[in-house]
Amino acid sequence: MKRYERFADEIAGLIRQQTLRPGDKLPSVRQASAGRQISPSTVFQAYYLLEARGLIRARPRSGYYVNATARVTSPEPLASQPPVSSTHVAISDLVFEVLGAMRQRELVPLGSAFPGPELFPLPRLARTLASGMRRLDPRRIVEDLGPGNAELRRQIALRYAVQGMKVDPNEIVITNGAMEALNLCLQAVTEPGDVVAIESPTFYAALQALERLKLRAVEVTTHPRHGVDLAALRAVLARHRVKACWFMPNFQNPLGSLMPDEVKRELVALLGEHDIPLIEDDVYGELYFGRQPPLPAKAFDRSGSVMHCGSFSKCLAPGYRVGWVAAGRQAQAVERLKLMSSLSAPVPSQQAISGYLQQGGYDRHLRQLRQALAGSQARALRAVERHFPKGTRITRPEGGYFLWVELPASVDALQLQRLALAHSISLAPGQIFSADRRFGHCLRLNFGHAADKRLDNAIRTVGQLAGSLMPPA
Amino acid sequence: MKRYERFADEIAGLIRQQTLRPGDKLPSVRQASAGRQISPSTVFQAYYLLEARGLIRARPRSGYYVNATARVTSPEPLASQPPVSSTHVAISDLVFEVLGAMRQRELVPLGSAFPGPELFPLPRLARTLASGMRRLDPRRIVEDLGPGNAELRRQIALRYAVQGMKVDPNEIVITNGAMEALNLCLQAVTEPGDVVAIESPTFYAALQALERLKLRAVEVTTHPRHGVDLAALRAVLARHRVKACWFMPNFQNPLGSLMPDEVKRELVALLGEHDIPLIEDDVYGELYFGRQPPLPAKAFDRSGSVMHCGSFSKCLAPGYRVGWVAAGRQAQAVERLKLMSSLSAPVPSQQAISGYLQQGGYDRHLRQLRQALAGSQARALRAVERHFPKGTRITRPEGGYFLWVELPASVDALQLQRLALAHSISLAPGQIFSADRRFGHCLRLNFGHAADKRLDNAIRTVGQLAGSLMPPA
Repeated sequence: MKRYERFADEIAGLIRQQTLRPGDKLPSVRQASAGRQISPSTVFQAYYLLEARGLIRARPRSGYYVNATARVTSPEPLASQPPVSSTHVAISDLVFEVLGAMRQRELVPLGSAFPGPELFPLPRLARTLASGMRRLDPRRIVEDLGPGNAELRRQIALRYAVQGMKVDPNEIVITNGAMEALNLCLQAVTEPGDVVAIESPTFYAALQALERLKLRAVEVTTHPRHGVDLAALRAVLARHRVKACWFMPNFQNPLGSLMPDEVKRELVALLGEHDIPLIEDDVYGELYFGRQPPLPAKAFDRSGSVMHCGSFSKCLAPGYRVGWVAAGRQAQAVERLKLMSSLSAPVPSQQAISGYLQQGGYDRHLRQLRQALAGSQARALRAVERHFPKGTRITRPEGGYFLWVELPASVDALQLQRLALAHSISLAPGQIFSADRRFGHCLRLNFGHAADKRLDNAIRTVGQLAGSLMPPA
Repeated sequence: MKRYERFADEIAGLIRQQTLRPGDKLPSVRQASAGRQISPSTVFQAYYLLEARGLIRARPRSGYYVNATARVTSPEPLASQPPVSSTHVAISDLVFEVLGAMRQRELVPLGSAFPGPELFPLPRLARTLASGMRRLDPRRIVEDLGPGNAELRRQIALRYAVQGMKVDPNEIVITNGAMEALNLCLQAVTEPGDVVAIESPTFYAALQALERLKLRAVEVTTHPRHGVDLAALRAVLARHRVKACWFMPNFQNPLGSLMPDEVKRELVALLGEHDIPLIEDDVYGELYFGRQPPLPAKAFDRSGSVMHCGSFSKCLAPGYRVGWVAAGRQAQAVERLKLMSSLSAPVPSQQAISGYLQQGGYDRHLRQLRQALAGSQARALRAVERHFPKGTRITRPEGGYFLWVELPASVDALQLQRLALAHSISLAPGQIFSADRRFGHCLRLNFGHAADKRLDNAIRTVGQLAGSLMPPA
């Protein structure tokens, strides 16, 4: 643990013990630096981290204050303990059963995988789309095939460049959302029967992709705050002939964990030693609550073996189905697989997004989106803390729009999901996030929809239902 | 052969022998009916067929006249003679090499798979798109997932109903173009190593799909006018454990062959006996030149084992990437595969097309499109006839926008393709249309781009180049 993290944890402890209470002002950076004999930049980093965790808030020209929502004292979940053997994956039926039940507009979408549509600049996108299609050279309509709209690929390369990454637009393949990108990457580097390392818990779509391609899964211990445990990964690599890793270093779904950038560097080096490609699912990277955008693991890749998959579906234009992959050495293979499986991404959607990016304003939108999500998280955390049974553990992700909630072991999340549906609330039960249906007492809660009374009430209802499933004390 | 077909062939013979010459008037329906003692409707059907083949043309209130383009006397190619064994498919590299060379705007696109963009109502689509997205309920943006836009599926079901087919909208899955639909169908009904029956020659994307999914191909004799030979198919089914057929009964790519509706009925019955699903690629069905739209094979399916794949890419909105499949018994399997591989089709594209279909005018557009393509075909036929070496055989498809040209055996189509590229003309050489690179002296010629001097000149150049590749007489 770094010095600023130690200092941040110390303050977090004071808040938890109520020594520092909501509304209290923290020592100024100068005071803290002098008093603790640490550098001002260490204090700054610690305060940023606490802000990211929703514990404190900066007031312009005034200083840092303890948040009203900082009273969340529930413990965080512990790192997962997946089985050491690899697993045949057969989870799709369960996933579809759960997802199928969610497809009703009337539900409070705590189980949804998407943030609320009201968070996106849909009218402006529609205008950009309209003007882009009016101006479109008709010949482009049959030529934007293959790797995708050239201007859009250039804009994406530019955004990499802002992060200090050198990504050639020719390495980028535009896809029908990140889902297709991830699937194509997996196909490019595996054969049926191969073993793929995934996080534990993991996004169910990764499990379904493995199942569809007849791959075996080996799950790696994942910490709810820091992500994949590299020691555990080393052990997995020693034991299994892993052909690829599919990880989400930034705001993992469902945990929300964020792998520290220096661990990403180690991860890339470790996989490099074993010559194992990394399929990096980075669809939430833009949704950070801290001051600094987290880097993708791809930023540390010198050999072209990280396949970085991004998307506009979670941060700008859901439903437009525009994602991409910067596929490194696999770029041509992925481009060909794309051509063979669905030819090309839709021209109108690509046109709308490249136009939007050219106009500017994307970063302003992202700032607003992050702020809205951070606010919803605080609200959701408070509600879970208040209404869920004693013994519940909750994550505090530093980005994204999911909480991972570990209920007392006696609560069955599938049963809870069915009860909640009867109350018009959807839930994502823990069972769909592992190949062997573990996490049966966990839930992924989506707080990315209207953060209002409706959210509070839904969480209260779920908490009460969970309580009703526990044996009497 | 039916009576009207015999009668049509007789007249076609008279035209070929120049007994009937361009501009000559044919006997009126009444005259012909009385003179030949056949019913007026038989005469009508024969005249319709001759019109579809571009040999005669109706002038309103006047009668039928021999076309100026009817002097095409080159013989048609014969039915193919594929090998009887099944083949491992490894053709993708060649296909990508050939397609890659085509990706330059300056080429005359005789090798293209698309019709000219100027044939489509792109401005009106753009307006429909714009107004549709403006009015869109934001919640729809995350809800049009899964099988697709409900209104679009209803509109597609309505178009089936007009053809007398009962297709439940719930059986329809919207996909990223027909390419994805076909791939998902193939995946739904096969396992790696299975044998799939395809036409000979066949669309290269079918070969690539088989290659990607590690399937074996068995090619079936296909007649350039009538399509798959059912006797040959019976022999194939007796010899191989065929897990699926992937056929294009309507205007097959590359032959342009049209399987007569009654043969489709037989085909469906035959496959039903063997319990083999038919993946029906019907992306050109709307582009018929005759009076009647051809039915899909699906029209004769009572057991839900025909998976009918359609698309708006070839007849309305290229680049929008909206296709679909009416997948019968496999509907749920396909829907799930779709969700797993690319989640859903783009909302804006679906919105634009469903809006366009609701407004009406699609059929008017299709009529104009068919007329334009029929005119281009006549022009292209005449040019090939005039400029290609003696001994060349040419198809006369009754729809679509491809000619299949069989050059004298000494001409190597790949060599010809390279020469043509140097003259800024793209070509689709026969080698990419079979698993074992047969058809090495054939070409698929796209006449669906501006039918003007440029087309004539390009065809003349290709003909001259082909001549230069032949040994001196």
